[in-house]
Amino acid sequence: MKVNGVHYRTIWLNDDGWSVEIIDQTRFPHRFETVTLRSLDEAAHAIRAMLVRGAPLIGATAAYGLCLQLRQDASDSALSAAYDCLLATRPTAVNLRWALDDMRHVLQGLAPAARPAAAYRRAAEIADDDVAINQAIGRHGLALIQAIAAKKPSGGPVNILTHCNAGWLATVDWGTATAPIYMAHDRGLPVHVWVDETRPRNQGAALTAWELGRHGVPHTVIVDNAGGHLMQQGLVDLCITGTDRTTANGDVCNKIGTYLKALAAKDNGVPFYVALPSPTIDFGMASGDQVPIEQRGAEEVASIAGLGPDGAVTSVRLLPEGSPVANFAFDVTPARLVTGLITERGVVPANAAALAALFPDRAAA
Amino acid sequence: MKVNGVHYRTIWLNDDGWSVEIIDQTRFPHRFETVTLRSLDEAAHAIRAMLVRGAPLIGATAAYGLCLQLRQDASDSALSAAYDCLLATRPTAVNLRWALDDMRHVLQGLAPAARPAAAYRRAAEIADDDVAINQAIGRHGLALIQAIAAKKPSGGPVNILTHCNAGWLATVDWGTATAPIYMAHDRGLPVHVWVDETRPRNQGAALTAWELGRHGVPHTVIVDNAGGHLMQQGLVDLCITGTDRTTANGDVCNKIGTYLKALAAKDNGVPFYVALPSPTIDFGMASGDQVPIEQRGAEEVASIAGLGPDGAVTSVRLLPEGSPVANFAFDVTPARLVTGLITERGVVPANAAALAALFPDRAAA
Repeated sequence: MKVNGVHYRTIWLNDDGWSVEIIDQTRFPHRFETVTLRSLDEAAHAIRAMLVRGAPLIGATAAYGLCLQLRQDASDSALSAAYDCLLATRPTAVNLRWALDDMRHVLQGLAPAARPAAAYRRAAEIADDDVAINQAIGRHGLALIQAIAAKKPSGGPVNILTHCNAGWLATVDWGTATAPIYMAHDRGLPVHVWVDETRPRNQGAALTAWELGRHGVPHTVIVDNAGGHLMQQGLVDLCITGTDRTTANGDVCNKIGTYLKALAAKDNGVPFYVALPSPTIDFGMASGDQVPIEQRGAEEVASIAGLGPDGAVTSVRLLPEGSPVANFAFDVTPARLVTGLITERGVVPANAAALAALFPDRAAA
Repeated sequence: MKVNGVHYRTIWLNDDGWSVEIIDQTRFPHRFETVTLRSLDEAAHAIRAMLVRGAPLIGATAAYGLCLQLRQDASDSALSAAYDCLLATRPTAVNLRWALDDMRHVLQGLAPAARPAAAYRRAAEIADDDVAINQAIGRHGLALIQAIAAKKPSGGPVNILTHCNAGWLATVDWGTATAPIYMAHDRGLPVHVWVDETRPRNQGAALTAWELGRHGVPHTVIVDNAGGHLMQQGLVDLCITGTDRTTANGDVCNKIGTYLKALAAKDNGVPFYVALPSPTIDFGMASGDQVPIEQRGAEEVASIAGLGPDGAVTSVRLLPEGSPVANFAFDVTPARLVTGLITERGVVPANAAALAALFPDRAAA
């Protein structure tokens, strides 16, 4: 999407034809800086230190990390070592393993001399495929927004609430939850986004607000506490969130706090949609109560970083000495609270039969 | 309650018999400092600059502010000017006007020479009355906690979730929502409190966590997003919050985000109680949809203060440049989501008939 009028992806090949450029997302929202990756080590560091984040973007970065290694050493042993190195950067990321397996499958049958070029071709395809999935989600979600806009008597903007960052910064381009929003905006359909701050890591305030602002999409940042009141007041026309994992029955695991917004949406008759690229569906898990919920460090709650009075990014402590913290990273929104799942193949109700019918290949596997 | 073993109220008369001591609440949670009020101006400043906050404490501080003026000048004109000065500090606080009217009613029939002593007596009564109300709420709420503890098979602590600060720091002592918790703890009944951070002003993280910690009550700070997940996991036995205004039908206006927790409590069968000193009931307002919701400045969301690496309290900016903010301070929890109202006269269902029956004098007025 655009940053002050210039189109960007989150990862791209430089004009030299081999080095890879990424946006350093640890600097958001106060700095916009790109970083050049020239080696496997630099790619691995970018994933590990979260210069890149978001499952699709991590997968694409890992694919390019293999490329960077193969142009220096394309032997079997170098391929194998690079695979292991990248896989270890964030071992729980599903897309990371998927992208690495895909790359290895393509490359290991080739002679070493043919590998670098094939690797760059396949990495570019992985990136392009992510963009295509998000664009398809965008088209299906756009139809939902258009239908709501057509029913609004006032002619005012369609007000969309989102939680966390399921935006283009988490993918290669377009994002998942944001793809319908960008498409609506780009076509001149007035939209306005309520951006949940998304404590404790503030991905909404730091990332979603930044990317919407730079692309020119009207938006307003709110604390996570505010969404219920907004829905009571009729100020939200629909909710769209992303998901980290959706189980076979349509239960949605997503950033902590998503469940509370889904409850408020249900209580106020606001449609609640989840943007769901099909790789995120876990057909092997029957329902959301089986999803293990990651607990993260206390420091994420106890302290927060921001731009200090001297212009430097500074971390400040928020809690009294000695107060313990619990930090659950995700929650599960039961399928009964989800109006529909926006997939690249269309919008379906959140239930096992509908998901299996739309992805018969995946569901049967 | 206790601060590291020493009992404090939030406001008290010094040993000199005339100057008034308060805790500077703008310094929480990183500093515990008291301030001496020696004049009307100092009392007015303490209210205006929020060194004291919470409706009952503001009322008591205003009462003592009149005392400080009268010992210097007890004339009719001085009384009238002091009344006007204090009323203007925070004009929307209900308890402020109530305390000032009460004091003036007691004082204006007396000869000036008799006023200072009478003023100090009445101010002490106002403070003591607040403590008595909170203790009564505590006793009624304690019975609820005891009943839940008796049913817990594990014998583990009763887990109580609270939002914002309805603690002793908002009152003269005990607090409203916290009074049952302190009573349970002091009697050896194991309790553990989930403390909602309460963005944007972080009253939970900064005040509730501080006061629970200093009194020795086990607690854990969570982001506002987490409560729903905790309830889904069976980790919350009951919720107790305070209220800024409860309407005649039992709708509860309280800090933004309360409604979301009440929805989650309902969805998971967790009892949701509101601690309600009767002066907070607005029998003149039929239902919560009539409550005007204050919108506050963007800065409260855009920036946050904390303890910097150099040990100084520093404010840091969280948002990207140019992102607008909406900052609604309160929301309304419909009576249908409230299990019961814990008043100083007992626990009643949240409906018009029950409230009117418990407070027939107030309801008819």
